[in-house]
Amino acid sequence: MYSPSIKKLIEEFSKLPGVGPRAAARIVFYLIKKDAASSSRLAAAIIDLKKEVKTCRLCFNVYESEKEICAICADPKRNKDVLCVVASETDLASIEKLKTYRGLYFVLGGLRSGFKSSQDRFLRTAELSKTIGANKALREVILALNPTSEGQSTIIFLEGLLKPCGVKISRLALGIPFGGELEYADEDTLNSALEGRK
Amino acid sequence: MYSPSIKKLIEEFSKLPGVGPRAAARIVFYLIKKDAASSSRLAAAIIDLKKEVKTCRLCFNVYESEKEICAICADPKRNKDVLCVVASETDLASIEKLKTYRGLYFVLGGLRSGFKSSQDRFLRTAELSKTIGANKALREVILALNPTSEGQSTIIFLEGLLKPCGVKISRLALGIPFGGELEYADEDTLNSALEGRK
Repeated sequence: MYSPSIKKLIEEFSKLPGVGPRAAARIVFYLIKKDAASSSRLAAAIIDLKKEVKTCRLCFNVYESEKEICAICADPKRNKDVLCVVASETDLASIEKLKTYRGLYFVLGGLRSGFKSSQDRFLRTAELSKTIGANKALREVILALNPTSEGQSTIIFLEGLLKPCGVKISRLALGIPFGGELEYADEDTLNSALEGRK
Repeated sequence: MYSPSIKKLIEEFSKLPGVGPRAAARIVFYLIKKDAASSSRLAAAIIDLKKEVKTCRLCFNVYESEKEICAICADPKRNKDVLCVVASETDLASIEKLKTYRGLYFVLGGLRSGFKSSQDRFLRTAELSKTIGANKALREVILALNPTSEGQSTIIFLEGLLKPCGVKISRLALGIPFGGELEYADEDTLNSALEGRK
């Protein structure tokens, strides 16, 4: 139906997460209407991304520099005694944006799935054990994972894995979100908020 | 929070229709995880699009070839006596996919908005008048526009504009969609289905 270049680009955009064929077609016709400079900027930014971005061999977060490790791992001012385990780079960014946490991170690369346990081998559990083993100053590991069934299952799995290390293991507090209303909170959340009262 | 290349690409993706900053970040981290060839293919497809795609000066659909006009306008087998006015290239593709309509098209470039009448100047109404005036064989104009308030407002506007041309003007039938249930049809749809019974 569409001409070859349009079809090709709709196909490429459809491969991206959260973009279906209809959304892809909308994007393509938007680009056709826009000037060539907008398209060039987008294409150049995609190419630059792959050229510039590296993965830190300690925390597995992505970074850009000539250095061997990322800026957070290399920062002498960060507390080496606490390690925050997150599922993804975006979760790391959410916590880092708070500017209150001053410890180290570890990007696990996902969460355990109840169904597809074959996916579990993509989680960096062996690397996590290694990072924890190599850090003699470590006293606490925060498992900052989503309070979903996948997150809970991952927390239980990691607690078992990290027990022999002898460090303190903590999770994020569960409760009513700021601005939330008790009336609309689900039972699990309300129960957790009640249990964790202080 | 993110490093420069990541930030830049999230910005670029966020400009696309239907892609917010969160969806853009998901796409960027997906590309980081994928091999460089996937990113190169996407970037190349974006560049090719702007190089290859032209707009037909008769129907304003997009096409790719060395020719002066698009394949549909140039096809001697298409009926020159009927012109189907659509809002967008994607609507044209939806009708063309049916393989039942054999007339010509005209891409209006949008619909009238009740609120932002300043947007109306982007609609190709002058070009439509010109195309209709130049086609001596024309006997019918089908206004194949969405049955929404914007679509209806555009239909009424075009009916007024095209009246002096003396050609028959028709709209798409309104009714219960195939597989739809009367119980769930809204009143306007049900009324239209009843009125248009045959």
